[in-house]
Amino acid sequence: MEELKERILKEGKFIKPDILKVDSFLNHMVDAKLLRNIAMEFKKAFSSENITKIVTIESSGISIAAFCAYEFGVPFVFAKKYNATNLDPDCFCAEVFSFTKQTTSNIRISKKYITKDDNVLIIDDFLANGKAILGLYDIIRQAGAKLAGCGIVIEKSFQPGRKILDDMGIKVVSLARISSIEGGKISFLD
Amino acid sequence: MEELKERILKEGKFIKPDILKVDSFLNHMVDAKLLRNIAMEFKKAFSSENITKIVTIESSGISIAAFCAYEFGVPFVFAKKYNATNLDPDCFCAEVFSFTKQTTSNIRISKKYITKDDNVLIIDDFLANGKAILGLYDIIRQAGAKLAGCGIVIEKSFQPGRKILDDMGIKVVSLARISSIEGGKISFLD
Repeated sequence: MEELKERILKEGKFIKPDILKVDSFLNHMVDAKLLRNIAMEFKKAFSSENITKIVTIESSGISIAAFCAYEFGVPFVFAKKYNATNLDPDCFCAEVFSFTKQTTSNIRISKKYITKDDNVLIIDDFLANGKAILGLYDIIRQAGAKLAGCGIVIEKSFQPGRKILDDMGIKVVSLARISSIEGGKISFLD
Repeated sequence: MEELKERILKEGKFIKPDILKVDSFLNHMVDAKLLRNIAMEFKKAFSSENITKIVTIESSGISIAAFCAYEFGVPFVFAKKYNATNLDPDCFCAEVFSFTKQTTSNIRISKKYITKDDNVLIIDDFLANGKAILGLYDIIRQAGAKLAGCGIVIEKSFQPGRKILDDMGIKVVSLARISSIEGGKISFLD
């Protein structure tokens, strides 16, 4: 997606060799018009699938999932990552290790909101090591639902996540695939 | 907003006398079409203001703010509430006490994303005791920005937040104002 790649090149910053900061348009301040365009790209990519639900994880995935849900005309559910006193105790749970934060979170989705009849599209801002996606996939399997695929805004293709998901036969659509960041220079796959 | 009140009456649950759960359409599973309609209501209510930025707080405010930002044609910023290793260290900070969770959080917004030229609309899912809004207002003042007002989806008018904001001269638009919940029955102001 050219518009997205241009924003990454113009505004993205690497604060460590493997952490890309895009907090001027995606992760802290957010460009809603760009998100709508991103959602329309995912709608095109998954138009042949009868998606019934969008699933993401708090917090950065939420606004992207919201626009996708609007485009697909289905609800979205965000997995809770933080302490939520009023969350339904009857939940699907999975563990997710964050390399960025070096912590393990328990992510949770109420059993009411994913069922065996769902055909789920997972949406997330980044794909790096794939742990968040695998956690969500674990929950989808616990629910007996079907995973239609994953829509990723920015893939760091030099990290292992994409290959892991490919090897599992999961359809992944990434709108910007970063192949390398040699000397702070960002390069994209084709 | 009639559509919203109907959803609250149909799907809202009080898990404690003062905690309303609307996690089937607003806080966990989310109805994006409803959010778009909510955003259009806020656009009408604040159409005379030259809003330059929408500000909210993670996580439940994010999807509402995203649709509002789209309607207003401006960016939105969400205050970070949780540990974020890659957040700009140069931040505006404020403390927010959560009655629901009985904890104090430090909320943070990078100094780059609110400036003295901004005319801010705060968006949030709930107004109860007003602490989250006051924390965001504190940050807006630190930035030297102007607060145009607050757009609230659900106000629990029997709790002190609305009166506190009214007394401070802050314009508040709440789309559903709950006046009481006697015996589990939800009543609205007019």
